[in-house]
Amino acid sequence: MTDSPALRTALAYHHAWTGGDFELAMTHVCDDIVCLAPSGRLDGAAAFRQFMGPFAQIATRVELLAAFGDDTTAVVMYDTDTVPVKDAPGAECVTVTDGKITWMRIVFDRVPFEQARSA
Amino acid sequence: MTDSPALRTALAYHHAWTGGDFELAMTHVCDDIVCLAPSGRLDGAAAFRQFMGPFAQIATRVELLAAFGDDTTAVVMYDTDTVPVKDAPGAECVTVTDGKITWMRIVFDRVPFEQARSA
Repeated sequence: MTDSPALRTALAYHHAWTGGDFELAMTHVCDDIVCLAPSGRLDGAAAFRQFMGPFAQIATRVELLAAFGDDTTAVVMYDTDTVPVKDAPGAECVTVTDGKITWMRIVFDRVPFEQARSA
Repeated sequence: MTDSPALRTALAYHHAWTGGDFELAMTHVCDDIVCLAPSGRLDGAAAFRQFMGPFAQIATRVELLAAFGDDTTAVVMYDTDTVPVKDAPGAECVTVTDGKITWMRIVFDRVPFEQARSA
């Protein structure tokens, strides 16, 4: 299952941020990444960092549910517990070019996070 | 990529509901399916049908972004336009046993659907 160049990069990124080393995770992200997130499109590593960094900080448990890939595309699905919300799964579909994540579509449900914020 | 028993079933289910034949899609779903949806856990095909059937009816466009699998697990990620919400991506991680989907974790963002409902 890890015999995929794209998946190797996706998992390196995943294990870095879930292991608490977000700077290491960012080394797998292209400067020009385009990330389609529930809140909208993010252009570039700085915008991506602002989005994903805070989430990595509040995650208290991450469990990989599935990880697959081919030469250029990988999908990672995981469940997380976070400080405000338990059981918050997410899925990422990434394109990898020259060992860096150049495109990411990330899907998760914002409702429980909004509920926690307004509680 | 389709050389996976689990993925064959996941895609048969996917192509059936996106092709407008939800009853055909349900033939790939185990009577005892457990589905973990954003709104909570659904037990059994009847509960699953109540959840997924209405969504299939409002989908106007479905684009497969990625589909991978192995013997027992598959992941499908797609983008959809629906009558109330455009650009509503979803991801499904399924377990397949004896050619039927017995477990599904489905992830999507409920926020735009709630916004459309209250608009």
